[in-house]
Amino acid sequence: MLIDVTDLADPRLSDFVGLRDAQLRRREERFIAEGLTIIERAFAAGCRPRALLVQPRWLPGLAPLLEAWPRVPVYVASEGFIEQVSGFHVHRGALGSFDRPAEAGWDDVLAGRRLIVCEDTVDHANLGAIVRVAAGLGWDAVLLSPGAADPLYRRAIKASMGASLELPWRRLEGDHELERLRAAGFRLVATTLSDRSVDLADYRAGDRVALLLGTEGSGLSEGWTARADDHVRIEMTDKVDSLNVAAAAAIFAYALR
Amino acid sequence: MLIDVTDLADPRLSDFVGLRDAQLRRREERFIAEGLTIIERAFAAGCRPRALLVQPRWLPGLAPLLEAWPRVPVYVASEGFIEQVSGFHVHRGALGSFDRPAEAGWDDVLAGRRLIVCEDTVDHANLGAIVRVAAGLGWDAVLLSPGAADPLYRRAIKASMGASLELPWRRLEGDHELERLRAAGFRLVATTLSDRSVDLADYRAGDRVALLLGTEGSGLSEGWTARADDHVRIEMTDKVDSLNVAAAAAIFAYALR
Repeated sequence: MLIDVTDLADPRLSDFVGLRDAQLRRREERFIAEGLTIIERAFAAGCRPRALLVQPRWLPGLAPLLEAWPRVPVYVASEGFIEQVSGFHVHRGALGSFDRPAEAGWDDVLAGRRLIVCEDTVDHANLGAIVRVAAGLGWDAVLLSPGAADPLYRRAIKASMGASLELPWRRLEGDHELERLRAAGFRLVATTLSDRSVDLADYRAGDRVALLLGTEGSGLSEGWTARADDHVRIEMTDKVDSLNVAAAAAIFAYALR
Repeated sequence: MLIDVTDLADPRLSDFVGLRDAQLRRREERFIAEGLTIIERAFAAGCRPRALLVQPRWLPGLAPLLEAWPRVPVYVASEGFIEQVSGFHVHRGALGSFDRPAEAGWDDVLAGRRLIVCEDTVDHANLGAIVRVAAGLGWDAVLLSPGAADPLYRRAIKASMGASLELPWRRLEGDHELERLRAAGFRLVATTLSDRSVDLADYRAGDRVALLLGTEGSGLSEGWTARADDHVRIEMTDKVDSLNVAAAAAIFAYALR
């Protein structure tokens, strides 16, 4: 259902207003896909569209996807209009609002053999990159501490190249839920530079691995470090203090896949 | 030499005006360090300071570094003033302007055994992350195609955690300079999904490796791919098309270190 829009205050555009506020959006029932590629991935992942806001140039490409959703409003506007509504420069002028899918159930998560568990990863680009690498290297799911960013925030989905919509993920209610993983046979592997850390090159992973990644600034908390079964480090030179968490995730996910 | 500044048009602040324009700054003889940590790294790397623009709160920490440079002007201003001059939100209100160090000479570059060569890496965060991982994992130098971003641009230095100031790097004059590497005994290893790509897990690196990384959108060019001695891929699922270039760099740099 194509609808031309020209009024910035049009109440039908409420899904697309003020998209820069990540905190606000996390509480909502929808997520925003930015750019045609991510919109296509959202459809492919079976997400239910609420509305689209796009430049006319994308309509031919979207037509086949929209055939199954004849009642979904497709608001058509100029690139400048879209930017003014959303409050940021929209990548190639295409936004989709979709119902937020449910998080993965514990059964699904625990059926896997390789899990990444992010403690307070707050940067959306880092979180998206971690989800992308997990999906690309065959890890089964991502778990998130209560303080970690939202993998369905627009920029995290984009950094994940849409993998946030495909890979099972779930938010932990608290640190105690790490014990669920252990009870299910996962070894909790802390990525940390502690006294007892083993070099990654020498570490032999068990059948089930839950890789604990720390927050950007200060790494894993003492609590999580203490809960871990194994401490593993990437051998490094003294030229840098640490690697970026997404780079470290890539190396661990590759070495322990 | 402490100088209070309150006039946004003060001509002495010219080093710090309009810092958001990466293209402009690349042609200049200076680079900008943002935040106290990076300023400290610039001093530690032996870079010559031109001027600082900082909040009063950082003066005690900077005093020992400035003892050797009594004539360097240290402009003191509020966080809001610094933001207005520079045109962006300055991380914790501290900027340093330093003379741009010379690029590494070919002799230094060719004395190494592990080189990363970036073809048109345009994103400063990616380039910084690549330099950081190269430094952290003991690679010897980074080379850049003419179209790649500047590792001394403010945001690239920051993403590298200052490693751009320590790790030798050099910009190639053109594709033909790849032959210098081959002539010096380096194998040119293309990170690419081609018909003849070997899985990274099966690849045995030679004594000297020059790892060719492609641009963010489309990967290595046909020209660079054709020049490579070996084609190597990271085995992936079909859930994503590719990994982020910095994530791929981390995995290759770890596996071939």
